[in-house]
Amino acid sequence: MLYLVGLGLGDATDITVKGLQAVRRCCRVYLEVYTSVLTVGKEALEEYYGKELILADRDLVEQGADEILKDADVTDVAFLVVGDPFGATTHSDLVLRAVHAGIPYRVIHNASVMNAVGCCGLQLYNFGETVSLVFWTETWRPESFYDKICKNRTAGLHTLCLLDIKVKEQSIENMMRGKKIYEPPRFMTVNQAADQLIQIIQRRREEGEELGMTEDTVCVGVARLGADDQLIRAATLSQLMSCDLGAPLHSLVVTGRLHPLEVDMLRVNAEPNALQHLQEVDASTCCS
Amino acid sequence: MLYLVGLGLGDATDITVKGLQAVRRCCRVYLEVYTSVLTVGKEALEEYYGKELILADRDLVEQGADEILKDADVTDVAFLVVGDPFGATTHSDLVLRAVHAGIPYRVIHNASVMNAVGCCGLQLYNFGETVSLVFWTETWRPESFYDKICKNRTAGLHTLCLLDIKVKEQSIENMMRGKKIYEPPRFMTVNQAADQLIQIIQRRREEGEELGMTEDTVCVGVARLGADDQLIRAATLSQLMSCDLGAPLHSLVVTGRLHPLEVDMLRVNAEPNALQHLQEVDASTCCS
Repeated sequence: MLYLVGLGLGDATDITVKGLQAVRRCCRVYLEVYTSVLTVGKEALEEYYGKELILADRDLVEQGADEILKDADVTDVAFLVVGDPFGATTHSDLVLRAVHAGIPYRVIHNASVMNAVGCCGLQLYNFGETVSLVFWTETWRPESFYDKICKNRTAGLHTLCLLDIKVKEQSIENMMRGKKIYEPPRFMTVNQAADQLIQIIQRRREEGEELGMTEDTVCVGVARLGADDQLIRAATLSQLMSCDLGAPLHSLVVTGRLHPLEVDMLRVNAEPNALQHLQEVDASTCCS
Repeated sequence: MLYLVGLGLGDATDITVKGLQAVRRCCRVYLEVYTSVLTVGKEALEEYYGKELILADRDLVEQGADEILKDADVTDVAFLVVGDPFGATTHSDLVLRAVHAGIPYRVIHNASVMNAVGCCGLQLYNFGETVSLVFWTETWRPESFYDKICKNRTAGLHTLCLLDIKVKEQSIENMMRGKKIYEPPRFMTVNQAADQLIQIIQRRREEGEELGMTEDTVCVGVARLGADDQLIRAATLSQLMSCDLGAPLHSLVVTGRLHPLEVDMLRVNAEPNALQHLQEVDASTCCS
């Protein structure tokens, strides 16, 4: 049996009891390490689960799936994923390989940022399509996520923005030299995400485009969601550019139309200087 | 401390270790019983958690919140919610009451249908706004969910349809007589949801309206998501009208534009007679 086990969002104890029982039963346990991270490392998980973990980077999952699935028809293998197992595309691929190899699989779900973000006070069913923000390079500055956010806002919907994670990336120089030397991991912060959005807004304003959001749009910065030191800050986009939310992971929510109950919840986590803006929201953009 | 603890989607062991530790520490433990249900009842949970549970119906949560929050500033109280605590609006209200009473609160997340539905093989970030289907009555047959589904489909997005749950409802007769007699609980099935959608499609077709979906649209019926006997069926809407998925809870997904990897995953759970239709989807509506 192949067990795909969600680890949830905080530390070692965020695994479900069912998940922990499955992990302890398995003869090989892989930990997927390239789509998300917990607030604790491999060693803490190994100690808590009582199992040695094999780190599974993108190469192993996408090209070495046979190794992961080896003997899983006659023994139990676990594949651990931070959050819920079906957040990332590549895991569908692993499941399909298992199915085609006649290996039964079982999913043990857990919280994902896609649902846990509801704790910021915005209603989950008022979210539109989720978008991803990638680190811009000098030559690649995609803006399609901005258009999706505006489309959601036009429909009155909030947008969850997942922020880029770069783990085990090679510099172009090292890649060209064939050197397997990896850059330090990078995790996009709410500041960086807000900065990208503001750059897009400014450029489009200069081009005379009608804006679907501005520097004053109420957003929510979310850091270490589900962890003991989780931080949630409701503020304007420009306020979030200079708001330090600490260690990764970060996510950003751009609000759509706010319901009064949502405004009340945002106030619980609002920057003192953002309160005034939420009062303005109250008066202007709230639907009743 | 008020702990809002998600129970996940299956049985007693789907609680997280962190959640279980919190529950065992609390002096009062409430179980919210009107927005969702597990596959096991109160007694099984009490035995597993080692705690007596107080059932919290809508009346208690919405009107008796003070009772739930009593002494929670000096002792620990848990409020258990099937899935994740922030799926339903009324729990924001409980949090706000706690905040205003100076009671600290903590959320312990878990899987929700909003993210676990990803196991059907459709990518979570390709979902648009979530909709709710309510039981129609003779005089109240809302259709707004259909328009939202079509809007999502126009944008290429899938739609998660949450199906109505009626727990502790009074008949109008008993309500008028002031009798606190409750009807048996009702849970909308995928069949009933498909039937409502098809009625809307037929009516609008007769009125000459351009249709955003038809009886042949590929949908996914999901039953007992996360439980040992979970059932997932990919089929056309009309096929789902006569597809028995067994005991509650059910959910329905209406697909938007399908990615080839999503089609492959749907095939794993497709009705044999729906395979042909998925092949047609392959050829016609897939984006590359």
